[in-house]
Amino acid sequence: MEYWSYPPKYDPGYMPEPSSRYWFPVRETMAAGERDTAIAERLRAVMAHAYAKAPFYRRKWDEAGVHPDHVRSLDDFERVPVVTKAELLESQTRAGPFGDYLCIPESDVHHIHGTSGTTGRPTMFAIGGGDWQAIANNHARVMWAMGIRPGDVVFIASIFSLYMGSWGTLLGAERLGAKCFPFGAGAQGMSARAVMWMNIVKPTAFYSTPSYALHLAEVAVEEGLDPRDFGLKVMFFSGEPGASIPSIRRRIEETYGARVVDCGSMAEVTPWMNLAGTYETEGMLVWQDMVYTEVCDPKTYRRVPYGSQGTPVYTNLERTSQPMIRLVSGDLTHWVDGPGPCGRTYPRLPQGIYGRIDDMFTVRGENIYPSAIDSVLNDLSGYGGEHRIVITRDGAMDELLVRMDAQAGIYEAGADAVTRLRARAEGDLLRVLGVRARVEVVEADVIPRTDFKARRVIDDRDLFRSLSQKMDGADGHG
Amino acid sequence: MEYWSYPPKYDPGYMPEPSSRYWFPVRETMAAGERDTAIAERLRAVMAHAYAKAPFYRRKWDEAGVHPDHVRSLDDFERVPVVTKAELLESQTRAGPFGDYLCIPESDVHHIHGTSGTTGRPTMFAIGGGDWQAIANNHARVMWAMGIRPGDVVFIASIFSLYMGSWGTLLGAERLGAKCFPFGAGAQGMSARAVMWMNIVKPTAFYSTPSYALHLAEVAVEEGLDPRDFGLKVMFFSGEPGASIPSIRRRIEETYGARVVDCGSMAEVTPWMNLAGTYETEGMLVWQDMVYTEVCDPKTYRRVPYGSQGTPVYTNLERTSQPMIRLVSGDLTHWVDGPGPCGRTYPRLPQGIYGRIDDMFTVRGENIYPSAIDSVLNDLSGYGGEHRIVITRDGAMDELLVRMDAQAGIYEAGADAVTRLRARAEGDLLRVLGVRARVEVVEADVIPRTDFKARRVIDDRDLFRSLSQKMDGADGHG
Repeated sequence: MEYWSYPPKYDPGYMPEPSSRYWFPVRETMAAGERDTAIAERLRAVMAHAYAKAPFYRRKWDEAGVHPDHVRSLDDFERVPVVTKAELLESQTRAGPFGDYLCIPESDVHHIHGTSGTTGRPTMFAIGGGDWQAIANNHARVMWAMGIRPGDVVFIASIFSLYMGSWGTLLGAERLGAKCFPFGAGAQGMSARAVMWMNIVKPTAFYSTPSYALHLAEVAVEEGLDPRDFGLKVMFFSGEPGASIPSIRRRIEETYGARVVDCGSMAEVTPWMNLAGTYETEGMLVWQDMVYTEVCDPKTYRRVPYGSQGTPVYTNLERTSQPMIRLVSGDLTHWVDGPGPCGRTYPRLPQGIYGRIDDMFTVRGENIYPSAIDSVLNDLSGYGGEHRIVITRDGAMDELLVRMDAQAGIYEAGADAVTRLRARAEGDLLRVLGVRARVEVVEADVIPRTDFKARRVIDDRDLFRSLSQKMDGADGHG
Repeated sequence: MEYWSYPPKYDPGYMPEPSSRYWFPVRETMAAGERDTAIAERLRAVMAHAYAKAPFYRRKWDEAGVHPDHVRSLDDFERVPVVTKAELLESQTRAGPFGDYLCIPESDVHHIHGTSGTTGRPTMFAIGGGDWQAIANNHARVMWAMGIRPGDVVFIASIFSLYMGSWGTLLGAERLGAKCFPFGAGAQGMSARAVMWMNIVKPTAFYSTPSYALHLAEVAVEEGLDPRDFGLKVMFFSGEPGASIPSIRRRIEETYGARVVDCGSMAEVTPWMNLAGTYETEGMLVWQDMVYTEVCDPKTYRRVPYGSQGTPVYTNLERTSQPMIRLVSGDLTHWVDGPGPCGRTYPRLPQGIYGRIDDMFTVRGENIYPSAIDSVLNDLSGYGGEHRIVITRDGAMDELLVRMDAQAGIYEAGADAVTRLRARAEGDLLRVLGVRARVEVVEADVIPRTDFKARRVIDDRDLFRSLSQKMDGADGHG
């Protein structure tokens, strides 16, 4: 049954033929205009639900003079005020624990997860049982498009705790009828055990952050194993931009001999696989029938034309518990019109999500994204796989220092080899960034690895701090 | 619907009235003799399934001259040869990855988990989708008996990885309609965040190991929080004997102001909540209609009479994927006849599982279980909450050293207070163990805490090593 309505109610027994490229052929390949009409209808239904159940939305929309009935088209919808993460936190602080945007009775909450809360009070995700099933169905659809089929072994190597990445992947894999191996990550010694288990079980699909996959490959080699022997067919990633950066993608594909697929938007809008590539399509598709995504000008929050850069603004079309309606991401991407090589008629993000507005830093007037530096280094032969970016101010001048490690063998080859690697890195960075970076090469494995998301930028300028605050402020506009 | 058959097929919509003490009143309170007749019938059905599907069982039973059809009574069943963990590992090494005791098609495997594998090749648990549902139903029944109801918030503070404890608890909580907060454990900094979250969310039910619950209480105090303010109603534990040891139980109940319930058998026999106390019944009930448990003489593997000590031997009555049929646990308990105060007519384990055959050590001819030392110290005012047991041989004499930490304040009170604490500890240990132990008192928090299972015994005698090997060998008998 190819179901599409709101609230969603999927047939738990539905399963396409393994030979089918699509889980839902009609929804995935329909003409974009026809889909837009259906989306406008769903938007009205989601808004009506939220307006009836959530003081948070009712108050916000009443103040802005918008009403669910007013939304007859996607253009009308652009007049609905956006929601920021700060507003969600404020709502939970005031009307806790789940905030006054919870649209189901508190007793119907099925799972509680949340943000990490490392920098203050966390935000809680309260997900209803019906939503839990809908998330499973949506993720199964996307993982099907990645080429995963019933009977595949899906190895999940990210922590099972607050982080929605692991849980969302598990849900999709369960619904799809795969063999789920929720190994997790985060505790001492787990990396060595992960590669031991992969070598025994031979999983066909793998999920983690791109950083951790590269680290696990290093651990495998230390343990005397070749990651290609794990027999992986597809590896999919979220949590970091890496899997849509061609040089990183290539590095992972060559190391493991598997296809790499990028996915992931925000935990708040789970099903977060609403942005996801497929086995045939690189970058990401915007699965508009799960979560309606507008790539917007970060000042006006109106959609930018296809071919332009902006920040994604998300609206859940299949959530009833805490539906996000025009949630501002603060991420950066550029979108183009569909269809992709796989035949799905969704818009595409050819470079995925390549950064956040507040990730960007400016050095001597040039805007630089950490992902650009990551990309350059991963294209450089001799790069050991990890680096740090340090920005300082030396008098009036910003200094950009990139500390990178060298592949094993470079140091043994002598000082000349190290000097040559540094010179090549500096040349490549200058060409791509348009600004001179000083490179410092260190020995292999000196820079710590991560089993989660990499944090590589260290900014030591006062200037950056104030810039960063200004950006946070921009994030708060309605 | 109160269902009982094999293979199990539960109604996913079934839910008792919140006021009902029992999930399945008939199955839980039927006359023991009537239940035994039904169990014998199930045993034949499970054995017939395993005989048809698993070369492992067919070979084993053919060699022993037993056949499913021969089993007409529980007495007949005692002639079925036992299975050891070593045999499971051997089967997986030979006929991997899931061994030739897998009784469903490999493509029907839904979840993969396993033993930790810290001491060699791990054993894999391959659980089918139908079994996953049956486990959920069984655990929901038991958690219902613990007093957990739909809408309760269940906070799970143990690692989500191979360990079946966390997953089994989550499954039961989901099926019961509770709000599930699978927080996990194991990564750096998670203990402090766990208490922060509990303070915000105010969960009503909590699951971890007893050791970790006591550690979390210490962390809460360090963070300026009172564990009683979390508002917990019931705390249930597995993985260690603690929750059935009166002094530890009392310590946890007083620290948190919540009821403590003990549960848990072995990961291999999941639904491992087949041994579990209830809100009204201390120790554990033996939920014979989920997993048929025989407390056996560890040499003959015949049942010992009620009132005696032995080792549990488990047989799954509701698993189809890897049903365990007479699996030897190596654990120690003593059982008595039912019913318990809650009216359930199952046999009971008043002291829970209090050790393992190979946990026991002998000092100067006395058999000592680590849990006895744990119990004595937890009854001692001034005990800081953690200890180590060190056994050495000084010439011809075994030396038993107990290194314990003192409560904060004891050291500040002066050397006399420390000396008095040591003397009291030595006196209490001598009285209970029948052998003199030397006690060394150290300052509060000097001995490392665990977020999983405590490992407290350090044995430095050659003698113990050979004894330990002999015990492992005994475990391998058929």
